[in-house]
Amino acid sequence: MANILERLNITIPIIQAGMAGGITTPELVAAVSNTGALGTIGAGYMHTNKLKEAIQRVKQLTDKPFAVNLFSANLEVFTTDVDEMQALLNKKRKETGIDKQENLVKVNDYLHEKVYLLIKEKVPIVSTAFGALSSVLIERLKENNSILIGMATNVSEAQLLEDMGYDIVVAQGIEAGGHRGTFDIEKYPNGSDIGLIALMQSILDNTSLPVIAAGGIYTRQQLDGLLAMGASGVQMGTRFLLAKEAGTNKTYRRALVKANYQDTVITNVFSGRPARAIKNGFINEIESSGLDVLPFPIQNELTKDLRAAGAEFSISDLQSLWAGQGVGALHKEESVEDIIALFTDKNRMKANLIEHD
Amino acid sequence: MANILERLNITIPIIQAGMAGGITTPELVAAVSNTGALGTIGAGYMHTNKLKEAIQRVKQLTDKPFAVNLFSANLEVFTTDVDEMQALLNKKRKETGIDKQENLVKVNDYLHEKVYLLIKEKVPIVSTAFGALSSVLIERLKENNSILIGMATNVSEAQLLEDMGYDIVVAQGIEAGGHRGTFDIEKYPNGSDIGLIALMQSILDNTSLPVIAAGGIYTRQQLDGLLAMGASGVQMGTRFLLAKEAGTNKTYRRALVKANYQDTVITNVFSGRPARAIKNGFINEIESSGLDVLPFPIQNELTKDLRAAGAEFSISDLQSLWAGQGVGALHKEESVEDIIALFTDKNRMKANLIEHD
Repeated sequence: MANILERLNITIPIIQAGMAGGITTPELVAAVSNTGALGTIGAGYMHTNKLKEAIQRVKQLTDKPFAVNLFSANLEVFTTDVDEMQALLNKKRKETGIDKQENLVKVNDYLHEKVYLLIKEKVPIVSTAFGALSSVLIERLKENNSILIGMATNVSEAQLLEDMGYDIVVAQGIEAGGHRGTFDIEKYPNGSDIGLIALMQSILDNTSLPVIAAGGIYTRQQLDGLLAMGASGVQMGTRFLLAKEAGTNKTYRRALVKANYQDTVITNVFSGRPARAIKNGFINEIESSGLDVLPFPIQNELTKDLRAAGAEFSISDLQSLWAGQGVGALHKEESVEDIIALFTDKNRMKANLIEHD
Repeated sequence: MANILERLNITIPIIQAGMAGGITTPELVAAVSNTGALGTIGAGYMHTNKLKEAIQRVKQLTDKPFAVNLFSANLEVFTTDVDEMQALLNKKRKETGIDKQENLVKVNDYLHEKVYLLIKEKVPIVSTAFGALSSVLIERLKENNSILIGMATNVSEAQLLEDMGYDIVVAQGIEAGGHRGTFDIEKYPNGSDIGLIALMQSILDNTSLPVIAAGGIYTRQQLDGLLAMGASGVQMGTRFLLAKEAGTNKTYRRALVKANYQDTVITNVFSGRPARAIKNGFINEIESSGLDVLPFPIQNELTKDLRAAGAEFSISDLQSLWAGQGVGALHKEESVEDIIALFTDKNRMKANLIEHD
């Protein structure tokens, strides 16, 4: 296994997950990278010009490496076939006091534009979810010396990423918050559901890629154990949602602080893709409506304004409160520096890494 | 954390899970204990006289400590209200060529009898699933100097076990094969679903009990990592199903060897309690029938003869093929000695244990 710290040019084997939807402010990303860990801009739904601004702002705030996370799934869609779900959501919009929406969903896919931006901006590390990028995009990024990190939720996905030329794989255990990275949602409608302990071992046994462990991680003890188990590092999302530098809104922060370990579920009601979130009214209501949830990204586009209203009007029951199974342990806001300090007994971590090189 | 090796009087921090249903032959249990790990008689559905025979036979085969595993759930039931499910199963019985059954289910609960047997036989270690034993039984066992190991699938269950006086807790991650140990099935119809990494940390943070990690474990690397993460040992079930000494039937063994990592699901169709098994025809058929599965242990009693016929006639589609998420890694039968040898670099393990004491 290559030493991932050298490879990524970082000093702490922790990656801040590329959470989409306004969480990964340039301040968060830069603060993480400035500690020696790896910050990530979650660019999944971001427009190209917004991503450009974010990258340039991060570069002002840090001279350390950072990553940009993209969705490999095709986001392009144009449909008017959303009647029943839109009718239900319009009822909720009325209750909430926001504008009714028409039966039309149009989403542009800026993936190629964004990849070419990353090349132009010489972003050193690119991570992806929901699949592998096309071979053309992978080739372009490699010519640019970008390191490619792919997310896998089962061993077949990890093998595919290896075959496609990815450099590093994130093993996303069932514990993880937010979207399941699963590639084939028709085959696995709820996402692949392998626990991190079994998933990581299966990927170590069946690929030669360095493995980053993700899902339910929030302590140094877990980091130490995962390194001893053969991980090259860990990726954490939920742990950073309560960082002072994150874009997490107040209602969401309160929900995270209050949540217990058993309060999360896997649901597709927010986006059409399975994702782990804190149980709330929106999930109950859509799931008990009996309506079919529309495929990603249609459902995502349909529910977007309601979720934004939830943030604006402090209604937690309207928001997608993504969180992993470690959420029960999180009780306060902290600075990124304080969070990372909990994980950094550097000599010990380095010793562990060397032992398994 | 107390040193669990001393406490249990064993030399290898591995517990063979107390799998019910004929798997844990005296030969298996004794072979495991003879290596220095801890063998367990799975006495869940066993009649008292059969358990007595098994205990006495194990004692002939080893002078090392062993455990007996009991269900804390009440098994006593008498009902005739099983019409629809019994009709469906009678259709399957006809296809299979076995006798039709009446609409009557009667199960006796030998729990008290069995506990008094364990006391009489001075069984040193007693483990339980599906809840805590009653305070009276716990008191009797403690007077007998039995060590009590309870299984927990969430932090609340672990706290309850601690409050009731249990000595050790098994953290059963969602990865585990067989029955979910979850106490309150009305609250969690699919069982608590926390991944081992998050579950174990939450129990370490919220109880002072030594924690045995369970679920998806099949390599020494995982054992090392879990010890580094604060576990006092690991419990493995699936890994021992292919042991030559186990009572696993041939069709079941073949299914285990063939299964991939993604081939298991959580289902309640066999017993009325959620459990992880390799997907097969029985699961598909009952789940797609639209019938309500009857509660544990009624459903278990109803399906028992069909599952036995599956074993007898080598029909894997009729059996409950319990298996954990590590099953994809298992490809051959081995002796218990060979299995344990994969995990025993004793100095290294002891060093790990001491470091975390």
